[in-house]
Amino acid sequence: MPKSIQELTIGILGGGQLGRMLIQSGIDLNLDFHILDPDKEAPCHNFSNFTQGKLTDYNAVLEFGKSCDVITIEIENVNTAALQQLANQGKKVFPQPHLISLIQDKCLQKTFFLENNIPTADVIFIKNKAEAKLHAKFLPAVNKLAREGYDGRGVQVIKDESQMHKAFDAPGLLEKYIDFEKEISIIVARNEQGEIATYPAVEMVFHKEANLVEYLFSPATLAQEVLSNAEKIAQQVIETMKLVGILAVEMFVTKEGEVLVNEVAPRPHNSGHQTIEANVTSQYQQHLRAILNLPLGDTKIIQPSAMVNILGEPGYEGNAVYNGLDDVLKMSSAYVHLYGKKTTKPFRKMGHVTLLEDNLDQLKMNALYVKEKLKVISDK
Amino acid sequence: MPKSIQELTIGILGGGQLGRMLIQSGIDLNLDFHILDPDKEAPCHNFSNFTQGKLTDYNAVLEFGKSCDVITIEIENVNTAALQQLANQGKKVFPQPHLISLIQDKCLQKTFFLENNIPTADVIFIKNKAEAKLHAKFLPAVNKLAREGYDGRGVQVIKDESQMHKAFDAPGLLEKYIDFEKEISIIVARNEQGEIATYPAVEMVFHKEANLVEYLFSPATLAQEVLSNAEKIAQQVIETMKLVGILAVEMFVTKEGEVLVNEVAPRPHNSGHQTIEANVTSQYQQHLRAILNLPLGDTKIIQPSAMVNILGEPGYEGNAVYNGLDDVLKMSSAYVHLYGKKTTKPFRKMGHVTLLEDNLDQLKMNALYVKEKLKVISDK
Repeated sequence: MPKSIQELTIGILGGGQLGRMLIQSGIDLNLDFHILDPDKEAPCHNFSNFTQGKLTDYNAVLEFGKSCDVITIEIENVNTAALQQLANQGKKVFPQPHLISLIQDKCLQKTFFLENNIPTADVIFIKNKAEAKLHAKFLPAVNKLAREGYDGRGVQVIKDESQMHKAFDAPGLLEKYIDFEKEISIIVARNEQGEIATYPAVEMVFHKEANLVEYLFSPATLAQEVLSNAEKIAQQVIETMKLVGILAVEMFVTKEGEVLVNEVAPRPHNSGHQTIEANVTSQYQQHLRAILNLPLGDTKIIQPSAMVNILGEPGYEGNAVYNGLDDVLKMSSAYVHLYGKKTTKPFRKMGHVTLLEDNLDQLKMNALYVKEKLKVISDK
Repeated sequence: MPKSIQELTIGILGGGQLGRMLIQSGIDLNLDFHILDPDKEAPCHNFSNFTQGKLTDYNAVLEFGKSCDVITIEIENVNTAALQQLANQGKKVFPQPHLISLIQDKCLQKTFFLENNIPTADVIFIKNKAEAKLHAKFLPAVNKLAREGYDGRGVQVIKDESQMHKAFDAPGLLEKYIDFEKEISIIVARNEQGEIATYPAVEMVFHKEANLVEYLFSPATLAQEVLSNAEKIAQQVIETMKLVGILAVEMFVTKEGEVLVNEVAPRPHNSGHQTIEANVTSQYQQHLRAILNLPLGDTKIIQPSAMVNILGEPGYEGNAVYNGLDDVLKMSSAYVHLYGKKTTKPFRKMGHVTLLEDNLDQLKMNALYVKEKLKVISDK
């Protein structure tokens, strides 16, 4: 008889906020988690079964995986050779290791889009800065490192030839700069038996300085035709990949209404935090359902929402102090999520607040109010 | 400078499902919990900082409390002398120990209602069976043990003199049997500065054999006048007690629309499980806000709901197996909460399912469907 889901040990590579919210959701189904993270004070550290170890280390990942039945990730930068070895040994590893490898490398990821007719911005693959300099005519462009870019690192805009000197001197790509109307994300889920569920698109507003999501609005306000097209594209990506788990598909919508895939993330994603309160099934529960081959949940929106990332205040570094929490708790339908990170630093993701409200203008005002009131500073 | 809420250690006496859902909610505010429970496999056992110890033992509670800044309960049957000692030492103990003592004893609780003009059924206090037998004319009545009744234990109906032989031979009470129209519950919350928040009334449907809540419907369908009266009474109880925390006020509504307080529980309660998904603020978050003197949250209903208690199937005892989980996961807006109890026994509370649905008839059908499909049996 196969083990029931309660008898399985679920390993998560990464003990950050995404892992923390996965565990918080998994409590409802009485699931048993083991966590691996290099930081002994990671957001998941005070849950049982926390192992300190390097996610990129073959032996650490292999050893960790031995005690697990199902292994998943909350960050892409992990040792996929060890995961493949575990899969070969019969462990369920979702998302599949070869897909994590594909997505880890933005050049491979982009090649996958091109080969599978997934609409995406024009690109030139480059090996180093010298090669980049040969393509001044391609500017303005977004210059991305192939590997290890994350939360705004390893991505920059090169407007014209005068800025070419700052091009990364490492393998990566130059993507045609898209003067987009909106940046949206659609989260899709797929379980082992191939069932697919698609969340309604959300709109992301990026922090200019930190280059990471500052606000999110759900649902995206776009023409129905554009939304349908974006949903089809997101489904096309996950079906083509045959990925098991959830996949956040980040897309640009151009001023002409064209939809272009920017990049994808095979895990719970910042653009799905609001699903905890604002959608019937949260992205965290959905990811667990997908990797355990359970029926996928309804993705429907319960109420329009905004999500505000709570970032470490510039100028502060040290033990985190949350100023203005009471002001936010006084608001109706404001859901505070702190990630339990002991120390803050400028623009570190320390938490988020989800706001529910039928009126979009009110939502935006509430989001600004939260941003203004809730500040993460340090104790000295 | 006072400690921030994240720096406080919050002790919970009791590591059952209510403690588990408190912790699950407290993750959002990055709170630090310590748990005391006699059962090393209690639902909270796999959270960090779990101490095995007897809740009714003076020294165990005192010792446990020393490491905490704020102490609360998830079950009333605890050593209140130790809690009072901890309060005397300057610990925050909420609900206040003298109120736990009052509520622990159903005779004291009833006397409190009578002395404070809180409407309640007529009563005769009795010391033993012999004394009960003197009051045959008072029948039909509900015979309750003064102490340690819980989840249907220590409560029985005595219809007429022929049944008087089964009266409890211990201190307790005979309450006039109320041929009620409905049994409702209102949860009220109060923080240290005296702010009060009131949840809309819910209707409880009891399991006849097990004498515990089987279904719950939110909101209660009653005349507005009756509901307003019930809310006022619930507020009167918590204000008169000056209780800090949440209080579930269980009430009978008679066929004439009269509202009578049955009993109260000074902690998260079975009649508030649905607030996790169906109300703006869950009872768990509300209890934490109350004991931490934070602004109380909005109690508004987001959507009508039903809650089904998942009880151990009669005839099964041993390691729990959840049959029919997939059928429930396939439903839209069905929220499964399993409590992580390793072993099942007949009528043991093993979990609950909350259902959201605008249409009341559909809600009832869905509740019956869940009851029919999801069964907790044992593995042998």
